[in-house]
Amino acid sequence: MTLRVGVVGGGQLARMMIAPAVEIGIELSVLAEQKGMSAKLAASAVGDYHDEQTVLEFAKSVDVVTFDHEHVPQPVLRALVEAGVAVHPGPDALQYAQDKLAMRAKLDELGMPQPDWAAVSDAQGLQAFLDDHGGRAVIKTPRGGYDGKGVRVVSSGTEAEDWFAALAEDARGGELLVEELVDFRRELSQQVARRPSGEVRAYPVVETVQRDGVCAEVIAPAPHLNGRLAEVAEQVGSGIAEGLGVTGMLAVELFETTDDRILVNELAMRPHNSGHWSQDGAVTSQFEQHLRAVLDLPLGDPAPRQHWAVMVNILGGPTEEGLDVRFAEVMAEHPDVKIHTYGKDPRPGRKVGHVNAVGDDLDDVVYDARAAAAFFAD
Amino acid sequence: MTLRVGVVGGGQLARMMIAPAVEIGIELSVLAEQKGMSAKLAASAVGDYHDEQTVLEFAKSVDVVTFDHEHVPQPVLRALVEAGVAVHPGPDALQYAQDKLAMRAKLDELGMPQPDWAAVSDAQGLQAFLDDHGGRAVIKTPRGGYDGKGVRVVSSGTEAEDWFAALAEDARGGELLVEELVDFRRELSQQVARRPSGEVRAYPVVETVQRDGVCAEVIAPAPHLNGRLAEVAEQVGSGIAEGLGVTGMLAVELFETTDDRILVNELAMRPHNSGHWSQDGAVTSQFEQHLRAVLDLPLGDPAPRQHWAVMVNILGGPTEEGLDVRFAEVMAEHPDVKIHTYGKDPRPGRKVGHVNAVGDDLDDVVYDARAAAAFFAD
Repeated sequence: MTLRVGVVGGGQLARMMIAPAVEIGIELSVLAEQKGMSAKLAASAVGDYHDEQTVLEFAKSVDVVTFDHEHVPQPVLRALVEAGVAVHPGPDALQYAQDKLAMRAKLDELGMPQPDWAAVSDAQGLQAFLDDHGGRAVIKTPRGGYDGKGVRVVSSGTEAEDWFAALAEDARGGELLVEELVDFRRELSQQVARRPSGEVRAYPVVETVQRDGVCAEVIAPAPHLNGRLAEVAEQVGSGIAEGLGVTGMLAVELFETTDDRILVNELAMRPHNSGHWSQDGAVTSQFEQHLRAVLDLPLGDPAPRQHWAVMVNILGGPTEEGLDVRFAEVMAEHPDVKIHTYGKDPRPGRKVGHVNAVGDDLDDVVYDARAAAAFFAD
Repeated sequence: MTLRVGVVGGGQLARMMIAPAVEIGIELSVLAEQKGMSAKLAASAVGDYHDEQTVLEFAKSVDVVTFDHEHVPQPVLRALVEAGVAVHPGPDALQYAQDKLAMRAKLDELGMPQPDWAAVSDAQGLQAFLDDHGGRAVIKTPRGGYDGKGVRVVSSGTEAEDWFAALAEDARGGELLVEELVDFRRELSQQVARRPSGEVRAYPVVETVQRDGVCAEVIAPAPHLNGRLAEVAEQVGSGIAEGLGVTGMLAVELFETTDDRILVNELAMRPHNSGHWSQDGAVTSQFEQHLRAVLDLPLGDPAPRQHWAVMVNILGGPTEEGLDVRFAEVMAEHPDVKIHTYGKDPRPGRKVGHVNAVGDDLDDVVYDARAAAAFFAD
């Protein structure tokens, strides 16, 4: 009679659902892309999530299907729903995380604040957008980008010709998304959880620091944030979750502009790097919250446990020996820092873990987390 | 190169090591007594821990062997050590958790405060002890007792004749342990962790509330405790860990007497029910601390995260349907309470889980934890 959650995808997000699942007593199964992945302890099957039969077969052993990533194709998602499987988030919501053009159009419809944008299909269209927006813009492939991939800053209509050429061969349409280059003070992330039956809970909005397009550091809550902007961020997060019918965790990546506005940058419909602080810093971690939400159980308290939490990613690490060889040093110097690793072989720049520090003095907490993470650098 | 810890025994203590092992990135393997036990997710082998070959074979796949319980026979433990296996706690320490007479004698040698006691082998000897101690005493079988089993209050030398008769057939000697009936205000528990290389870290001493000989509730730290007694408790805990050479977690169950003394009641050389609060209430949980200690890694900070933490055991529960059917009610009413279940079928009085609540107002925290646990009662 144990509640059973199935996760498609065997990466670190699935891995980090294991701890709360074991604690509460939820049976977690993972359909992993291959053997030996981050979530291998819970992997009950290995297979290709593009294959409808593989995913349908996996779904038979669980009460609800959820995801480690947003890459499961719409036809596979819709086959699950047609077969009567509870899928959270469902295909109607996920399409907006899978296609950035669809997302921009939908957010306009919902009246959400976002950068100026357009769908462009050739150099001429791109140049027209550039001419209207100060000569520089961000161009994005609507599908498949992450961690800075599929994103490029351009100042001429000809700088995306390779992408236009590639898209011309794509049966799904040849348009790229172009967005104004936002003059922002910093990046924020607003996470909310939503149950199928409607309850929504918002986490405090956090500051995210990116390096080379990859999340490097998160401070929760965002320091010195104008109270009005915190309210707007929460309204935007909840409004998007409800407007798009998201179930489970939603992360809304935001720009805080130099003229004190909040604009939506990206969406993720799953636990998100900007919420890893919650494992040690919130009453209910984003991973526990995601499990509750997809099972349509009442949501937990997302409040911080102490004033500040700081997460610093471990990018790379000692490639010869693995992260474990640094445990002794980190633990000796930082007995209050929480180490999280993903069971992945270190490669330069690869996300292989993170550390969390919590406390009441922000300077101390930032120092602690950064210093601890630095021990893992190669 | 991942660090590998092997746990002999598949119960809830092994289960609760899974979350910190996954978080830090330690490979946990369990030798379970049978299939489908609490720690099944990490069970890499099923077998009898009385069998030397079974345990030796299991040990080959790990860097260090530790335990879910203290019942592995000394010859098996010593065979592991002789085969070069790192065993924590080791047989020299574990003998004192396995034999209460040996424990009493050793604690006397170390000068630890404990109740008056004696080894008695017949009704006459027991009567003599009773005559010297007000006519009532506690008699205990030296081996195999737990949760109130193997413990009896007697007021006549003849009331233990069944146990004397049983022991007469026991090749290991026919003595029972008799202890004075201590006039105590309440029971406390002092936990410490110790690494093989020597570092010792003490948790705050907690109050434990027993019902029918079983731990029902724990308040951390023990409210209104005389500061001198807290110091004594910590010294006793550290002194026993060092004196007995304990590695890993040690729990020292204590009496706080009505005349303000601390006396040692029992020892447990593993994570302990009195430390479950630490999962949500301490910077480093006893399960993470145990893993660090047995791997001889630097110990984590055992400090509380907030002023108070309260743990209430779930004893029994809805036997027809399992605990999951109550999740929705508990989560709806207590969004800040942490639920922990052990994957065991509820039976009246059986420990099948616990809840933790933390906060700064003791009355609120106690209420929250008790009310949440009550939802699970059948």
